[in-house]
Amino acid sequence: MIVTTVIVYVKPENINDFIEASSKNHEASIKEPGNMRFDVLQCATEPARFLLYEAYESEEAAAAHEKTEHYLKWREEVAGWMAKPRQGISYKAIYPKD
Amino acid sequence: MIVTTVIVYVKPENINDFIEASSKNHEASIKEPGNMRFDVLQCATEPARFLLYEAYESEEAAAAHEKTEHYLKWREEVAGWMAKPRQGISYKAIYPKD
Repeated sequence: MIVTTVIVYVKPENINDFIEASSKNHEASIKEPGNMRFDVLQCATEPARFLLYEAYESEEAAAAHEKTEHYLKWREEVAGWMAKPRQGISYKAIYPKD
Repeated sequence: MIVTTVIVYVKPENINDFIEASSKNHEASIKEPGNMRFDVLQCATEPARFLLYEAYESEEAAAAHEKTEHYLKWREEVAGWMAKPRQGISYKAIYPKD
Protein backbone atom coordinates (compact mmCIF):
# COMPACT_ATOMS: atom_id res chain seq x y z
CA MET A 1 0.00 0.00 0.00
CA ILE A 2 1.23 3.48 -0.84
CA VAL A 3 -0.30 6.64 0.54
CA THR A 4 -0.44 10.28 -0.41
CA THR A 5 -1.52 12.75 2.25
CA VAL A 6 -2.64 16.13 1.01
CA ILE A 7 -2.82 19.03 3.44
CA VAL A 8 -5.39 21.57 2.31
CA TYR A 9 -6.21 25.00 3.70
CA VAL A 10 -9.36 26.49 2.22
CA LYS A 11 -10.74 30.00 2.49
CA PRO A 12 -13.20 30.09 5.42
CA GLU A 13 -16.09 31.05 3.16
CA ASN A 14 -15.49 27.95 1.00
CA ILE A 15 -15.42 25.27 3.69
CA ASN A 16 -18.82 23.88 2.72
CA ASP A 17 -18.07 24.12 -1.01
CA PHE A 18 -14.90 22.12 -0.45
CA ILE A 19 -16.71 19.45 1.55
CA GLU A 20 -19.33 19.07 -1.16
CA ALA A 21 -16.80 18.83 -4.01
CA SER A 22 -14.64 16.40 -2.05
CA SER A 23 -17.64 14.25 -1.31
CA LYS A 24 -18.11 13.56 -5.03
CA ASN A 25 -14.39 12.91 -5.43
CA HIS A 26 -14.44 10.48 -2.49
CA GLU A 27 -17.43 8.52 -3.79
CA ALA A 28 -15.90 8.06 -7.22
CA SER A 29 -12.34 7.45 -6.01
CA ILE A 30 -13.21 4.56 -3.69
CA LYS A 31 -14.58 2.73 -6.75
CA GLU A 32 -11.27 2.99 -8.66
CA PRO A 33 -9.32 -0.26 -9.16
CA GLY A 34 -6.58 -0.47 -6.54
CA ASN A 35 -8.00 2.17 -4.23
CA MET A 36 -7.75 1.16 -0.56
CA ARG A 37 -8.76 4.33 1.28
CA PHE A 38 -9.82 7.82 0.28
CA ASP A 39 -10.49 9.53 3.60
CA VAL A 40 -11.55 13.18 3.73
CA LEU A 41 -10.75 14.67 7.14
CA GLN A 42 -11.43 18.04 8.74
CA CYS A 43 -9.09 19.25 11.45
CA ALA A 44 -10.71 19.22 14.90
CA THR A 45 -9.24 22.58 15.92
CA GLU A 46 -8.95 24.45 12.57
CA PRO A 47 -12.09 23.86 10.45
CA ALA A 48 -10.53 25.37 7.33
CA ARG A 49 -7.76 22.77 7.41
CA PHE A 50 -8.36 19.40 5.73
CA LEU A 51 -6.39 16.24 5.12
CA LEU A 52 -6.97 13.91 2.18
CA TYR A 53 -5.66 10.41 2.83
CA GLU A 54 -5.38 8.51 -0.45
CA ALA A 55 -4.19 4.91 -0.31
CA TYR A 56 -3.64 2.68 -3.33
CA GLU A 57 -2.31 -0.82 -3.94
CA SER A 58 0.36 0.41 -6.35
CA GLU A 59 2.05 3.44 -7.89
CA GLU A 60 0.22 2.65 -11.11
CA ALA A 61 -3.19 2.76 -9.42
CA ALA A 62 -2.29 6.05 -7.70
CA ALA A 63 -1.11 7.55 -10.98
CA ALA A 64 -4.30 6.45 -12.72
CA HIS A 65 -6.31 8.42 -10.15
CA GLU A 66 -4.79 11.66 -11.41
CA LYS A 67 -6.15 10.99 -14.89
CA THR A 68 -9.73 10.30 -13.84
CA GLU A 69 -12.53 12.62 -14.82
CA HIS A 70 -13.68 13.03 -11.19
CA TYR A 71 -10.19 14.02 -9.97
CA LEU A 72 -9.68 16.52 -12.78
CA LYS A 73 -13.12 18.00 -12.15
CA TRP A 74 -12.42 18.25 -8.37
CA ARG A 75 -9.05 19.89 -9.00
CA GLU A 76 -10.59 22.53 -11.22
CA GLU A 77 -13.56 23.07 -8.90
CA VAL A 78 -11.50 23.64 -5.73
CA ALA A 79 -8.70 25.72 -7.29
CA GLY A 80 -10.22 29.07 -6.39
CA TRP A 81 -11.02 28.01 -2.81
CA MET A 82 -7.46 27.31 -1.68
CA ALA A 83 -6.10 29.65 1.01
CA LYS A 84 -2.61 28.43 0.13
CA PRO A 85 -1.09 25.81 -2.17
CA ARG A 86 -1.87 22.20 -1.29
CA GLN A 87 0.96 20.12 0.12
CA GLY A 88 1.18 16.47 -0.92
CA ILE A 89 3.47 13.98 0.83
CA SER A 90 4.10 10.42 -0.38
CA TYR A 91 4.52 7.44 1.93
CA LYS A 92 4.92 3.71 1.66
CA ALA A 93 2.93 1.67 4.17
CA ILE A 94 4.88 -0.56 6.51
CA TYR A 95 1.51 -1.66 7.96
CA PRO A 96 -0.92 -2.77 6.79
CA LYS A 97 1.13 -5.08 4.60
CA ASP A 98 -0.22 -5.65 1.10
CA MET B 1 -14.70 8.07 12.51
CA ILE B 2 -12.10 10.24 14.19
CA VAL B 3 -8.43 10.24 13.27
CA THR B 4 -5.18 11.22 14.90
CA THR B 5 -2.14 11.63 12.68
CA VAL B 6 1.21 11.55 14.42
CA ILE B 7 4.26 12.90 12.62
CA VAL B 8 7.43 11.21 13.87
CA TYR B 9 11.06 11.97 13.09
CA VAL B 10 13.43 9.30 14.39
CA LYS B 11 17.19 9.35 14.64
CA PRO B 12 18.61 7.72 11.47
CA GLU B 13 20.29 4.95 13.49
CA ASN B 14 16.94 3.99 15.03
CA ILE B 15 14.83 3.65 11.88
CA ASN B 16 14.73 -0.16 12.09
CA ASP B 17 14.15 -0.14 15.86
CA PHE B 18 11.20 2.17 15.36
CA ILE B 19 9.72 -0.02 12.62
CA GLU B 20 9.99 -3.10 14.83
CA ALA B 21 8.43 -1.45 17.88
CA SER B 22 5.63 0.07 15.79
CA SER B 23 4.93 -3.30 14.23
CA LYS B 24 3.97 -4.71 17.64
CA ASN B 25 1.91 -1.62 18.40
CA HIS B 26 0.10 -1.93 15.05
CA GLU B 27 -0.72 -5.63 15.52
CA ALA B 28 -2.21 -5.07 18.98
CA SER B 29 -3.96 -1.79 18.15
CA ILE B 30 -5.95 -3.15 15.20
CA LYS B 31 -7.51 -5.65 17.63
CA GLU B 32 -8.80 -2.92 19.98
CA PRO B 33 -12.58 -2.38 20.09
CA GLY B 34 -13.47 0.56 17.87
CA ASN B 35 -10.20 0.67 15.96
CA MET B 36 -10.73 1.27 12.24
CA ARG B 37 -7.19 1.84 10.95
CA PHE B 38 -3.74 1.91 12.47
CA ASP B 39 -1.46 2.56 9.51
CA VAL B 40 2.29 2.92 9.96
CA LEU B 41 3.81 4.86 7.06
CA GLN B 42 7.37 5.74 6.09
CA CYS B 43 7.94 8.87 4.02
CA ALA B 44 8.99 8.07 0.46
CA THR B 45 11.64 10.81 0.34
CA GLU B 46 12.78 11.04 4.00
CA PRO B 47 13.16 7.54 5.50
CA ALA B 48 13.52 8.87 9.06
CA ARG B 49 10.09 10.49 8.83
CA PHE B 50 7.03 8.42 9.70
CA LEU B 51 3.31 8.98 9.93
CA LEU B 52 1.00 7.04 12.23
CA TYR B 53 -2.61 7.13 11.08
CA GLU B 54 -4.89 6.06 13.92
CA ALA B 55 -8.63 5.90 13.23
CA TYR B 56 -11.29 5.01 15.78
CA GLU B 57 -15.07 4.86 15.83
CA SER B 58 -15.32 7.27 18.78
CA GLU B 59 -13.40 9.56 21.13
CA GLU B 60 -13.83 6.95 23.85
CA ALA B 61 -12.21 4.22 21.78
CA ALA B 62 -9.31 6.54 20.88
CA ALA B 63 -8.84 7.50 24.52
CA ALA B 64 -8.87 3.84 25.56
CA HIS B 65 -5.93 3.21 23.19
CA GLU B 66 -3.74 5.50 25.28
CA LYS B 67 -4.31 3.32 28.32
CA THR B 68 -3.41 0.01 26.69
CA GLU B 69 -0.35 -1.92 27.71
CA HIS B 70 0.96 -2.10 24.13
CA TYR B 71 0.69 1.67 23.61
CA LEU B 72 2.41 2.48 26.92
CA LYS B 73 5.18 -0.01 26.12
CA TRP B 74 5.63 1.47 22.63
CA ARG B 75 5.75 5.00 24.01
CA GLU B 76 8.47 4.09 26.48
CA GLU B 77 10.41 2.04 23.94
CA VAL B 78 10.56 4.74 21.23
CA ALA B 79 11.18 7.71 23.56
CA GLY B 80 14.96 7.70 23.14
CA TRP B 81 14.76 7.30 19.35
CA MET B 82 12.92 10.54 18.60
CA ALA B 83 14.91 13.15 16.64
CA LYS B 84 12.33 15.73 17.73
CA PRO B 85 9.04 15.73 19.66
CA ARG B 86 6.15 13.92 17.97
CA GLN B 87 3.35 16.06 16.58
CA GLY B 88 -0.21 14.77 16.86
CA ILE B 89 -3.13 16.33 14.98
CA SER B 90 -6.79 15.40 15.51
CA TYR B 91 -9.36 15.20 12.74
CA LYS B 92 -12.96 14.20 12.29
CA ALA B 93 -13.72 12.16 9.19
CA ILE B 94 -16.17 13.62 6.72
CA TYR B 95 -15.70 10.45 4.64
CA PRO B 96 -15.95 7.59 5.22
CA LYS B 97 -19.15 8.20 7.16
CA ASP B 98 -19.59 6.03 10.26
